[in-house]
Amino acid sequence: MDEPGSAAYEDLCEQYGQVVALQDAGEVLGWDQQVMMPPAGTPARTKQRSTLSTLEHDLLTDPQLEDWLETLERENLSEERAAEVREIRRVQTRQAAVPRDLVEARSETSSEALDVWQEARSEEDFSIFEPVLERQVELAREYAAQIDPDRDPYAVLFEEYEPYLGLETAEQILTRLREALVPRIEAIRESDVTLPDPFTEPVDAATQEALARDALDVLGYDWDRGRLDTAPHPFSTGTQFDARVTTRFDEAEPLSSLLSTIHEFGHARYTLGLPDDAYGSPLGQDRGLTVHESQSRLWENHVGRSRSFWQHFAERVADRVQAIDPDEGETLYRAVNRVEPDSLIRVEADELTYHLHIVLRFEIERDLIAGELDVADVPAVWNEKMEHYLGVRPEQPSEGALQDIHWSHGNFGYFPTYSLGSVLAAQLHGAATADIPDMGASIASGESEPLAEWLETAIHRHGRHYRTGALIEQATGRAFTVDPFIEYVDGKFGDLYGIEV
Amino acid sequence: MDEPGSAAYEDLCEQYGQVVALQDAGEVLGWDQQVMMPPAGTPARTKQRSTLSTLEHDLLTDPQLEDWLETLERENLSEERAAEVREIRRVQTRQAAVPRDLVEARSETSSEALDVWQEARSEEDFSIFEPVLERQVELAREYAAQIDPDRDPYAVLFEEYEPYLGLETAEQILTRLREALVPRIEAIRESDVTLPDPFTEPVDAATQEALARDALDVLGYDWDRGRLDTAPHPFSTGTQFDARVTTRFDEAEPLSSLLSTIHEFGHARYTLGLPDDAYGSPLGQDRGLTVHESQSRLWENHVGRSRSFWQHFAERVADRVQAIDPDEGETLYRAVNRVEPDSLIRVEADELTYHLHIVLRFEIERDLIAGELDVADVPAVWNEKMEHYLGVRPEQPSEGALQDIHWSHGNFGYFPTYSLGSVLAAQLHGAATADIPDMGASIASGESEPLAEWLETAIHRHGRHYRTGALIEQATGRAFTVDPFIEYVDGKFGDLYGIEV
Repeated sequence: MDEPGSAAYEDLCEQYGQVVALQDAGEVLGWDQQVMMPPAGTPARTKQRSTLSTLEHDLLTDPQLEDWLETLERENLSEERAAEVREIRRVQTRQAAVPRDLVEARSETSSEALDVWQEARSEEDFSIFEPVLERQVELAREYAAQIDPDRDPYAVLFEEYEPYLGLETAEQILTRLREALVPRIEAIRESDVTLPDPFTEPVDAATQEALARDALDVLGYDWDRGRLDTAPHPFSTGTQFDARVTTRFDEAEPLSSLLSTIHEFGHARYTLGLPDDAYGSPLGQDRGLTVHESQSRLWENHVGRSRSFWQHFAERVADRVQAIDPDEGETLYRAVNRVEPDSLIRVEADELTYHLHIVLRFEIERDLIAGELDVADVPAVWNEKMEHYLGVRPEQPSEGALQDIHWSHGNFGYFPTYSLGSVLAAQLHGAATADIPDMGASIASGESEPLAEWLETAIHRHGRHYRTGALIEQATGRAFTVDPFIEYVDGKFGDLYGIEV
Repeated sequence: MDEPGSAAYEDLCEQYGQVVALQDAGEVLGWDQQVMMPPAGTPARTKQRSTLSTLEHDLLTDPQLEDWLETLERENLSEERAAEVREIRRVQTRQAAVPRDLVEARSETSSEALDVWQEARSEEDFSIFEPVLERQVELAREYAAQIDPDRDPYAVLFEEYEPYLGLETAEQILTRLREALVPRIEAIRESDVTLPDPFTEPVDAATQEALARDALDVLGYDWDRGRLDTAPHPFSTGTQFDARVTTRFDEAEPLSSLLSTIHEFGHARYTLGLPDDAYGSPLGQDRGLTVHESQSRLWENHVGRSRSFWQHFAERVADRVQAIDPDEGETLYRAVNRVEPDSLIRVEADELTYHLHIVLRFEIERDLIAGELDVADVPAVWNEKMEHYLGVRPEQPSEGALQDIHWSHGNFGYFPTYSLGSVLAAQLHGAATADIPDMGASIASGESEPLAEWLETAIHRHGRHYRTGALIEQATGRAFTVDPFIEYVDGKFGDLYGIEV
């Protein structure tokens, strides 16, 4: 016999499948735009992408779809179908709540803001950016109010990126991070240890690309379902059938490019682990930015910055770069784990100071959205917090409040997921290490398939079946917690820098 | 004051603009699939593309769009708006006439037929292909009947590719071509002249790519709005903002690859000449396959196979290929104009025999659709006609009735536009030569911008403003005619092969 509500369920699945197909088509257009499109292609591409968004909005806000959801919500569905309905409802609610003209106003302001932000950066003048940032803050507040006028607007915005963990959890974790990391970074700053970089000469792009491909080979990237290209800002995009990685090469910073490639591999590996047969359903989609970032950070930090990985990979580097010897695994391990508290730029920050860059942004954007901080005061507050948390002060806005693109896009609430993802990465990696016999040895022999399979089983194959918290608990046996991350930091950096914590 | 029906006009334009954006998004997905996509990406890509087609169909068959068209058709519109309405109506009529399940049946049969066709080819067994070709013929007849049950179904199918010239014109032209070319090819076959190929050694792909880029530079390809890549079957796709070219390299046939690139350049140059400010309107779209093919053939045959072009380009070849001297322009000119009546394969055919390959297909598919030829008899009829027209006989189906992909797609009526395009190319090139002072000399000095600009003014910038016949008449001062083509053939090949006609 059919499950209850089968007709509505099938209609709903078909229409939602179209929504997913439109989103994924949009992702292909976006990839092409950043990687392949000739420079003059923008006007037509913009029209194509906005048409796909409009049609996606129309499909999600179709009154029929609302009817199907209501019908199904009254039925006693199987757990799996109930999860699909819950997730489609979540997406639909947010789309339906927001009037079309507000969506368009946000999108237009973002286009405009991008240009203004770039101009303000090149002029080193935050005041140029002020009016448009003010407008983005207002529009974001209005957007949040349309979705739920009775809740903290920043909490509503945050759920755009992390739907289930809740702002309170995020705030607790960020507070713990700040409290734990500020003194540890201070201790590292005062330590006598310096971790040297063995790359004394530039490494050309072709060699770096070969190394990036080596790394992807070692990590088991499925080239039948992916590709590697260069882009000005590295990213990963795609579906379980075709998840691509991009990177960029700075001749002076070969390790940075390599770690960035491994980071994007983590994203792509998650996407490739989503179940093929659930393509078009929420069960075939990723669980949001916290979990996505946990996958990229896990591969980047817990594999790409591990002693085991470099025991193996040093030889591959030595094959391609004359200055490196195959027995320099330990040197390379130390080099990729240098902590540099003086760095002002988030995207160049090391594994520890990174989180203080995030805490600072989180505190500022939370106060902006709450109306407790004026846009004009952002640079001053930024600089004070930098001094307070990291002991350094930007000299120019491009090193300070103008360094990130996110606010010009109106993406308030996005930053915290970067840190939450890193914290979750440590928790997942701890659980995987406990489950997989001799995982370090397997990585050290160039074999990361056991870890990839563990992650696929624990996380990837569930798609959106579980809410974030339940997924984490099921995968690791405990609730989401910052403890494994702090233990990891203490073990690794205590050892590297000879500090006591 | 507003023009009449302004509200309906604006709604219509907006919705049709979405249709165009969906089509163009689909083209990007198609380009990516053929050029970039990793092999396992097909399932998701198929779903994405079919979703875009479904939504395009929904937009075009929306009853509101029908209302807007009816409103506007009652008004006394400006000529330009009337043309837009006429063209949108044409597209809408065909979409609305055909039931969704027939569209789906054709699309499913095409997917299936592609596999079956490939199998039949590799088994060299036409009977494997028979049932599915039978089904495609039936579906095509049914499709034509849905659009207009009172007309010759083949004429209706032909209009899918060439909307306005009419089947009668096509038939007259193809008959003239057959009558003119059969004796001329016979004379060439009997002539003592052989035109040698100076490429005695293979040319590697990298050198060929450099030559292709040289050729595109010389022809004035706008790299800000385009790119060159390789694909198994060369094609061009895009919009006026971004029109890309693909090619392929056969180390033994560098001239063939080069001419194929120039052919695709002709398509791309047409697309790039469509007006930017009409993007999303029929006035910013191409005038169908005859005109499109006229542009590719004009650049391929009347430029790329001209003495003037090789006077200049021989030097570029000599720069990259040691076996070629800079003064070998005449040799290269003769080499690209070799006539090879023994060739059995259409896509490898020369400028003359090519049309007999088309005539043969045209006669067969016309009779198939008319029910006057059984599918089972196609190979025998094919082989007889080959013998009759070209004096050669395929030994295996892959050299005969199984060589082209078109029928597996159900594309009956497509082939004639290849010849019509070549014929039109000669007419346009004749008119351009009369209008542009010293055009041969300008091509011989590597300067093809006057010709490109002439074509842009005469053809490209009009989009779909005029019907095909009117566009040709306006551009050349006379109705569509095969005479300039035959004069061109007699002049060029009479000279090359020393034959009298």
